[in-house]
Formats: sequence, structure tokens, C-alpha cells
Amino acid sequence: MPTYKAPLRDMRFVARELFDFNEIRALKPYADVSDELIDMVLSEMARFCETELFPLNHTGDKEGCSIENGIVKPPKGFREAYKKAVAAGWINPFAHVEHGGQGLPMATTAPVNEMLTASNLAFQTYFLGNAVYHALSLHANEAIKDKYLPNLATGIWAGTMNLTEPQCGTDLGLTRARADKQPDGTYAITGTKIFITSGEHDFADNIIHMVLARTPDAPAGVKGISLFVVPKKVVNSDGSVGEANGVRCESLEHKMGIKGSTTCVMSFENAKGELVGELNRGLRHMFTMMNEARLLVGIQGLGLSDIAYQNALAYARDRLQGRSLTGAKYPEKPADPLMVHADIRRMLLTAKALSEGGRMLTAWVARALDFSAYAESAEARQASDDFVQLMTPVVKAFITDCAQECTSVSLQVLGGYGYIQDYGLEQYVRDARITPIYEGTNGVQALDLIGRKLALDNGRLLPRFFGPVGEFIEANSNNDELKEFVEPLQKAVDVLMQATATILSKAPKNPDEAGAAATDYLALFGYSAYAFLWARAAKIALEKLKAGEDKFYRSKVETARFFMTKLLPRTRTYLATLNAGAAPVMQIADEAFGPFD
Amino acid sequence: MPTYKAPLRDMRFVARELFDFNEIRALKPYADVSDELIDMVLSEMARFCETELFPLNHTGDKEGCSIENGIVKPPKGFREAYKKAVAAGWINPFAHVEHGGQGLPMATTAPVNEMLTASNLAFQTYFLGNAVYHALSLHANEAIKDKYLPNLATGIWAGTMNLTEPQCGTDLGLTRARADKQPDGTYAITGTKIFITSGEHDFADNIIHMVLARTPDAPAGVKGISLFVVPKKVVNSDGSVGEANGVRCESLEHKMGIKGSTTCVMSFENAKGELVGELNRGLRHMFTMMNEARLLVGIQGLGLSDIAYQNALAYARDRLQGRSLTGAKYPEKPADPLMVHADIRRMLLTAKALSEGGRMLTAWVARALDFSAYAESAEARQASDDFVQLMTPVVKAFITDCAQECTSVSLQVLGGYGYIQDYGLEQYVRDARITPIYEGTNGVQALDLIGRKLALDNGRLLPRFFGPVGEFIEANSNNDELKEFVEPLQKAVDVLMQATATILSKAPKNPDEAGAAATDYLALFGYSAYAFLWARAAKIALEKLKAGEDKFYRSKVETARFFMTKLLPRTRTYLATLNAGAAPVMQIADEAFGPFD
Repeated sequence: MPTYKAPLRDMRFVARELFDFNEIRALKPYADVSDELIDMVLSEMARFCETELFPLNHTGDKEGCSIENGIVKPPKGFREAYKKAVAAGWINPFAHVEHGGQGLPMATTAPVNEMLTASNLAFQTYFLGNAVYHALSLHANEAIKDKYLPNLATGIWAGTMNLTEPQCGTDLGLTRARADKQPDGTYAITGTKIFITSGEHDFADNIIHMVLARTPDAPAGVKGISLFVVPKKVVNSDGSVGEANGVRCESLEHKMGIKGSTTCVMSFENAKGELVGELNRGLRHMFTMMNEARLLVGIQGLGLSDIAYQNALAYARDRLQGRSLTGAKYPEKPADPLMVHADIRRMLLTAKALSEGGRMLTAWVARALDFSAYAESAEARQASDDFVQLMTPVVKAFITDCAQECTSVSLQVLGGYGYIQDYGLEQYVRDARITPIYEGTNGVQALDLIGRKLALDNGRLLPRFFGPVGEFIEANSNNDELKEFVEPLQKAVDVLMQATATILSKAPKNPDEAGAAATDYLALFGYSAYAFLWARAAKIALEKLKAGEDKFYRSKVETARFFMTKLLPRTRTYLATLNAGAAPVMQIADEAFGPFD
Repeated sequence: MPTYKAPLRDMRFVARELFDFNEIRALKPYADVSDELIDMVLSEMARFCETELFPLNHTGDKEGCSIENGIVKPPKGFREAYKKAVAAGWINPFAHVEHGGQGLPMATTAPVNEMLTASNLAFQTYFLGNAVYHALSLHANEAIKDKYLPNLATGIWAGTMNLTEPQCGTDLGLTRARADKQPDGTYAITGTKIFITSGEHDFADNIIHMVLARTPDAPAGVKGISLFVVPKKVVNSDGSVGEANGVRCESLEHKMGIKGSTTCVMSFENAKGELVGELNRGLRHMFTMMNEARLLVGIQGLGLSDIAYQNALAYARDRLQGRSLTGAKYPEKPADPLMVHADIRRMLLTAKALSEGGRMLTAWVARALDFSAYAESAEARQASDDFVQLMTPVVKAFITDCAQECTSVSLQVLGGYGYIQDYGLEQYVRDARITPIYEGTNGVQALDLIGRKLALDNGRLLPRFFGPVGEFIEANSNNDELKEFVEPLQKAVDVLMQATATILSKAPKNPDEAGAAATDYLALFGYSAYAFLWARAAKIALEKLKAGEDKFYRSKVETARFFMTKLLPRTRTYLATLNAGAAPVMQIADEAFGPFD
């Protein structure tokens, strides 16, 4: 019953009007990436997502995954779709051409992954080989790269990340998995890993596991963790797939959502692995690739927000119920469509404004990844990397928090039908609920922003955000037409700066002040970023409208107005609760939480 | 894995310290209801909920309901539990003693139903016979009452409400079900009703359906709808159960949650029914009992909020992960418990403060039902009824909105485990998601508050809330110790009054201004009510603490402080967005919502 149509028009707006794609083409590896090529890739991808993946989304949720005698069965149709994705080159279009990838700029990761996750988030979780590709590209020696990269680039081999253990999630210092060095230089890996996404399936000829473990004499805590590559089947020296390795899936978790995704308890028993990067630097190696993984989760939040909005909108247009408070708008019909009601429009516009905000923000950060890799000067690369570092926790946490709201208000538009499985909305709510949790909970993101990113080199990263925002405000502060957008933006940025100053002054005396402010601060950052992007979008749209009426640009201006007047005022609350400080949460005794007899 | 323990201590605090139970005993029918009796009833009920219903909650969710050849199968164990509830008198303890009920005051409906819904919401939905009992008590003739009330009072017969049809949910004017008068004075009912909660099961000897339908010559719209009582099996004149009536369950809905509850498509084919109350006044008859049904849904939100909090708290105490930002609190352990982290405490306190707020608010409104029925003077009865009318939409919508937040932050405390079915939290989130939808969506509640309740007799109802709140503020405004509670309360009430004035001035000129303000206004009302109740609770607790330290009262004071500083500032946003008016939502053209090619 639900439908999905990739929002290609808005994706083009973001890529080429809000931002300048020529700046990407100015980077050496992307000189030949024409607008036409991008259009072709995205519209082919859209077709694949709309017609192949989306139909499997609801059936995959219904069927789920099962395990019998160690054999894991993902939902029907997923294997075939994966094979098609491999054949079409959709698994990792960003992989280097030399490895069989398409060599697309990361700037396109936002639209590509938005479509994948909107149409079928559970299916998209089988693409974790991309993260393995990336980790090995950065940290493995040449022999390992030669062995693994080509098949990971195409998706012929899949991959997983093995971090979590029963006693350690956020706190990886508690890792117990053991790595014993063997005479041949490899390691025997033994231990149990849990919550392993796509840990086992039969889509690919091999599954390459990245595993955190410690050698027997490693230092305690996070400084004794190393990263290993452990294939499901041993890879022979000629690159062919050999015998089974000591890795197996013990059981599957039964989850609230993304039920088509296998979430595995993985058991490693003297599994043959090779060290990736330096010994005891495993956590650091993992973190260098965390930014992209977290950006991806933000994009997942965006995808689900958008598909939820699309379906709520379609329902609100179709469903006749009640009359407009100002008199019947369609007197010839038995009732007016839901669209006439202010509160329905509020819910729809909330989902629309936050979804499109997420589209702009993910694109902004994704393109910075290209500059951080390929800009000409080291300074430019560093500046872009600083921006990515700063914004990554915001992208991950803010967009996934918004996804909770977008999917929930969209469900609410459907009333009772929103609660029924056939209409799809309840699945989007359930699927979205994982996004504030995995790849570091949103609480951890907030601490990363406030504790690590803010503090780095006395605030070195901050100008990467405040700089361009300040320039925009200054350049447009005398523009009367833009006043309704620039003024609230200015106010939001003032609030954010004020909050930044408050934290920087209080936290050194009492670190709990940072901990207690973190979530409010991240929200202030998110709303400020959206305000900046919406103000820019409004400016561009107003300019285009001077050439003639156009419903797309009109929509941009009006949605920007909704954002500024109906969503941005939330910053008032976040500032007030941030200013209330740590005492109200820290001074209450543990026993006072209850229960009481 | 999850646990449930009824919060009897807090329930006693609310019933006897925050409010005065002697005022209930001053009502004639409740003169003999001693504290000891209430304690006994509630602790027995607690035992029943904790040991009989709670264990069926997770299994019921997992198994769900099925239908085969028209035979509906609820989850295993539900039938036996229902029979036990009948035997113990738990189905309708508020029913009159003359009918076999326990004759408990409605003041106790809040704790009783909180326990039922916290331990097993799906199971509690089979108690809809209570609503039928109530509807028939108010509107049926003596013959119908004699025939149905006794077996409904005990639960030997169950009941349902049949309002919704495929084309009409909120807008009951679109009802199509037909009622044809028969020579014997009964009616033949024909039509399809959907979303019928507990529409079919085998728990009871009969199921009594209340059905909205229209006679062939009835006026169009809401003024042509009548209310009929239609038993599953015809009731003979001697009260015995006779042959099957023309009612059957066609199919079951597959829902996001409350999976142990049968949600039926009911087909009526020349089913024998009797008119209840007056012809064409069916909607009005339904509405007189809506208050209690909506109060009950608010209580459901409270119950789920509390059980979610309980389990998040237990996890936060047990789970060792990371270290306190101010240095290890338990250096002898491998890590500190989650409880040391400010953001974890923020989430827990949010769930605690909102749950306990809901407990106070539902008790306040529930006891007003007793006064509205039995207070000595007509004025006092009217005043209490006015209060119930005013507060019912707030109770229903605000508490169920809070339930979304409470269950979600509680899930978040568990991280990845929150997403796994065995831990229970994800079920509470899914179950809670129905509460803002059924018994009138929360958007409809907001319109009811702003459009009907606010407007009634030029604001006749408003002093029922502002009166006692104003008195409390005045009586305590010079109390230094209470300043931190009374000042924010005063501010919140000022904001609410300001918002009320804004709406009353704008809405007559443009009804969409009311529609656009409704949800913000209801939230302002809810936060003000909680602020009032928390300030009162803090006052009482501070007085008790003068007699000596006590962790329960200390908890009350500190939770009140958290509420005032960390949750109440949300009113700033609601006021701002309310003041932004209708234009940002109404002026955007329908086509500007997209999609765009």
C-alpha cells in the first residue's frame, strides 16, 4: 500500500543550486563527473530502489530472518536483489575505479544512500562491506589490500564490523575477544561478538569480518585493542576462496525493526585473522572511519523521514474526513480532505521541513569529505576535515532524532491506519528507532561534540561552522526580503554561541556540566545548521521566483518560513534547559530514583 | 526479562497526601470506603497484575491473535486470566454493588487501571464491557438495563464500542451502518465496522456490542445517528443466552502493538438490536461517556510510561559502562554503572517526572468524577463536571504524548538492548503508540479543548483550573522555601493565560487560528497542570522532610526541581509557535507540499 518515489528534483536542487557541483569537479579525481552522469546514476538508482528494493521492504519486515542449524535465512528476494545490486555496481559506487568501483565522489553518497535506506533500510544494512573496504584502504598493508579490496569494492564479498560484546557496547575498553599470534604471523581470534549487522547470510561468496580483539599481553583498556581482518572463508594466496574459517553465527536477535537485517551473535573460535594497521591501535583505526559510518546513519534517518512524509502526504490528500474550520472547501464531496486541517498541515510541514533540512545537511557534510581527501592545499584539506569532524555527531544524532519525530507525526496523520502494518508507517517508525542507537548512541554523539570536538585545540573546529554562517548573515543582513529568514538565523546562532561560551566556562570546573549540557547543545547546533541551510535555500528560491512562478521554489520559501516560525523557536527551550545546568540531574541521590515501598 | 512492581507508595501519596481522600468518603455512596479497604484492594490488584497479567504481556505480544474460519484466537493464557479477573471482581470494581460490582469510587480508577495497563495493556483492552455498562446505565431503558447490566458489571459478558467504518473515523457524520425498524420494535442492524477492539473472543458468555447506525429516514450527518445495543448472542427474555445474532468478525488487523488485543473488522447482517436512548441522539449519548474512556487512555499512557521507567532504571543501575566524567565512582568495578552519566539521569528523570505528573493529574480528574456524580449541591456537581470536561482532552492527549517520550527515552537508556524484543522496552514503545490515536486522535483532543471547552459559555470552564491554581500561587507566593517551584509555576500559568487571550481574540475572526494553535495550547495546558501538581507535591514533601529525612519525600522535592528546570521551559517554545499563528501552515498552497518532478 505505501509508495516511494525518489525526490530527485530536491536532490538536484541541493547538489547544484544550494551548493556548487563545479567545486567537486575541480577536484582532480572528479574532473569528468558531469551533471549528466550524476543524473543518469541517480535516476537509474531511483528506478532500482523504487522497483526492486521497495517492494521487498514490507515483505522483508513481515518475514524477518531465521536461523536453523547455523544456516541463516534472510527474507525472500533479498539475495536476488543483492546479486542485482552487485551486477549493476550499486553496492559501492564510491569505490576506486581501479578496484572495480565507479569512483563517484562522496558528495553523491547522500542521495544514493537516502534512496537505498528510504526504500529498504534493512536491505541497505547488508552493504557494510563498504565500511570494511574503507577501513582496509586506510589501514591495511598492501598484501591485505590486494587480497580483499577488489571483491569488496564490487560487493562480490560482503563485510561486517565486530565491535560489541555482551559486556561492552559504548565502552570498548572492556573488550575481551582474544588474538593469539601464530607462528605464521597470523592471529587466532577467539571470542563472542554481539549485535553484528549482516554477520551471516548467503548473498556473497565470502564475508569479511573486521574484529576488535586484544593480544594476551596487550595493555588494559582501550589502548590494548587491535583490529583484525577475519574472513568467513579463508582466502587462498591466489585470491580464491578456501576452507571455512572458525567463525559462525550462534543466533539472531529479534528486534523492534529492520527485521530483514540479520543481527547476529558471532562466535570466533581460533579463527584465522590478520592484523590491520598497528598493534594496540585498533580503536584509533576504527575511529578514522567512524565519520562516514555516522554520516550514513544520519542519511538513514533522512531516508525514513522522507518516505514517511511521502506516504502521510498521499493519505492526507486522499482521505476525506471532517470539514475545514473556515467552511467546506469541497462541498461537492462528502467531506474535505485531511489537508484542509491546520494541525494536519503542521504535522506534514514538520516532516517536510526536517526531511529537506536533513537532505541539505547531509549533502553539505558529504561534499566536505571530497574536499578533505582531494583539495589541492593541505590547509584546505584540513579545514574540510575539521568541518567533517565537527558536524558528524550533529548529522548522526540530530537527523536521527528528527527521524523519530518525522516518522511519528507521519504515522499520526493516518490515524488508526497509521497503526496498521499494511500502511507502512508503523514500520518506518520501528525501523527509524534503531538510528539513534547504533554507531554510537545519540547521547555519545552529544558527548563527542561537546567533549571532544568543541575542546579540540581550544575550539579550532568551531570557525568551520560559524565562519560560513557568519558570512552569510553579514552578506544578507540588509536584504529586506530575506529578513524573515536571516533574523531568526542570527538569533539561533547567537543562542548557540552563548551556549558554547557557557559550556566552555563551566565544563573545566565540573565535567558533569558538559555531560548535562551535551544533548541540549547538540540540538541547538542542529537547529542552527538547519536555519542556515533553510535561509540559504530561501534566498536562492526567492531569486528564482523573480524569473517567474514555480511551485518548487514557492514550496522552498514557504517551508523555510514554516521552519523559522514553527520549529526554530525550540531553541528557546534548549537554551533554558542548558542554562539550568547539571545540578538538577546530578544532585539527586541514586536511591531517590526509587522504587519505594 | 523485564519486571513490573506496582508503585503503591506513590499511589498512596497521591490519593491521601496530595489529595484528601476524606473528601471522597464525605460522598454518600463512599462513606464506608476506608483507607484499609483501598489498601487491600490495591495491593491485591497489584499482586494480580504483577503475577498473572504481566507474565502474559510479552508472550501475548509475541503470539498475537489469529482468526481461522471466523474463530478468533487471542493469545494463550488470556482466557484463563480473564476468568480469574471475573472471579476476583477485577473487571469492573466501579460497578454498582446492586449489579454485582464492588462500588468503588472513580477516584480509584487511576491506580487500578494504571496497574492493569502497565502490566498488560493488550489484556486490559478486553475490559471494554465497562464502557458498555456505563453507556447503558446512563441511557438505556429499564428493560435493557435489567437484561444487560448485571452480567456486564461482573464481566461474565464482555462488550465493545462500534463507531468507526472504513470511510469514517473522526468524522462520524459519515456513518453508513443501517438500522431498520422491525415490527417487534427491535432494529435490524446491517453494516461493517472496523478497528473494533476486543470485537470477538471466547472469554465471556456473550459480547454486547454498542453500535452507531442510522435509520433509513434519519437526517444526514451527525444528527441522524442512533445508538443500538447488539448482542453477539440474542438474550432471551429470561436473561439466558440464546441463538447467535447476525454479527461476525470478518478479519483481524495486524498492528504495530497491543498485539494481544483483537482488533476486528465486524460485519453486522440484519443483527437484532435495540435502540439505546433517543433516536438520532446516538452521538450525544456516546459523548456523555467519552470522558471516562478518554481518561482511561490517559491512564494507559501513564501505565506504559511507568513500566518503561522502572525497567530503564533497573538497567541503568546494573549495566557497567564507561566512567563518570568526574572520575571513577566505582574504581573496584570494571566500569561505573550507567547511572553516573548526566545524560542517562536526564532521560530517567524525564520519564520519572512525567510519569509521576501523569499519576497526579489522572487522580485529580478521576476524583472529580465522583464529585460530579455525588456532591451534595447541584452547583458542586456542575463545578466538578466542568472541571472534568475541561481537563479530559488534556489528560488524554498530554499524557499519551508524554508516554511517547517516556517509553522512548527509557528504551534509549538500554542502548542496543532497548531494540531487542526480550527486554520489553520496544514493546512498550509500540504499545504506547496507539494511545495518541484511539478514542479521538490527540489533534482532535486539542481541537476539543480549544474549540469546544474553551468556548463554552464564554469560558465558563476555565476558572475550574485557574481558580485552584491561582489560590495555591497566592497562598504560597511569600514562601521562600517554595520559591523555586511557585515562581516557574506562576510563569507557566501567565503564559497559559496569555495564550488563552491570544486565541480568544484571534479565533472568532479566523477559525484556522484556533486550529493552528490547538496542539501548542494543549501542551501549555498540560505543562501548567503538571507544574501546579509538582509544586503542591514539593510543598507537601518539604513539610514532611521537616520531621526527618526520608528518601521518598526527598525524591519528590528533587524530581519537582528537575521538572521545573528541565521540562517546564518547554512552554517557551509552545508560546512562541502558538504566537506565530496560522499563516505559516495555512498559506502554503496544497501543491507546494510536493512531490516535484
